[in-house]
Amino acid sequence: MADDPFGIRDGEVAVELPESFDAGLYFIGRIRTPWTRREDCPKNANEARAAGVVCTIELDGRYAAGLTQVASCSHLLVLYWMDKARRDLVVQKPRHHGEARGTFALRSPVRPNPIAASVVELKAIEGNRLTVAGLDCLDGTPLLDLKPYFASTDAVPEAVVGWHAERSVST
Amino acid sequence: MADDPFGIRDGEVAVELPESFDAGLYFIGRIRTPWTRREDCPKNANEARAAGVVCTIELDGRYAAGLTQVASCSHLLVLYWMDKARRDLVVQKPRHHGEARGTFALRSPVRPNPIAASVVELKAIEGNRLTVAGLDCLDGTPLLDLKPYFASTDAVPEAVVGWHAERSVST
Repeated sequence: MADDPFGIRDGEVAVELPESFDAGLYFIGRIRTPWTRREDCPKNANEARAAGVVCTIELDGRYAAGLTQVASCSHLLVLYWMDKARRDLVVQKPRHHGEARGTFALRSPVRPNPIAASVVELKAIEGNRLTVAGLDCLDGTPLLDLKPYFASTDAVPEAVVGWHAERSVST
Repeated sequence: MADDPFGIRDGEVAVELPESFDAGLYFIGRIRTPWTRREDCPKNANEARAAGVVCTIELDGRYAAGLTQVASCSHLLVLYWMDKARRDLVVQKPRHHGEARGTFALRSPVRPNPIAASVVELKAIEGNRLTVAGLDCLDGTPLLDLKPYFASTDAVPEAVVGWHAERSVST
């Protein structure tokens, strides 16, 4: 299965998931991006930002009043649902990293609850549509939430991901 | 209903939610904190950090292998489920802020998908238990996800929440 992007690779570990869900999610909108194939997506938000690509978040009209005063935010935390990802891997080997690592040490979409979290720069709001920079997901990805980004609590510039820092130094 | 913390206040707006859910979540653990009543919780992560309170995240044993290499992270992004929050308010007036604002301009637990996102400092990992600083939720809150915090993409120190900045200046 090594060539199947949705399959399991050597060194990866799958678990049996619970038989039922504990809570339910509403898809509150869709994310519009230029990427329709997984292999075309930027590797991460840095690559997306570097490419200067602007994406659109389409919020369902039902929730439109929720955008009141969002325009005063320079950045948002966007939560979205990686609906194509398997959920049972606890150790995995993403295609861009050589080593197997724990799911909770990775930002891979593959996880028990495939919720992605990205910080985006808010460029504009027109009606229910937000124009943003910093997303790297497939076109049509379901939206779960939008939150104001508070630098006072959300920004930790000195944070370190040890395994990644070591990897960056050695390459 | 103004005195009911789970009720609706003047100026708040509720919408009819969809009839069914679009996706399901697994609770993958529980968060242990000293706070058992909503009114005892810190107002936000800054207050929690200032109080120097350390909390425990208990990951279900099923997912324990997912912690491989997490110890090399100085900070984590923790996603958890605000299971006590109503989900239908799009405009709300949190008890600590005077004005009604859009749900997506607020970090209130009340939102269509009550997923909270907090950056925590990782103090220690022993087996399936993580000791962290920076959480402000009720004891027993369901855990949804743990992610490594990458300063390169997650930290935006210059980000501004306009409505909040104006409020801070005027008070």
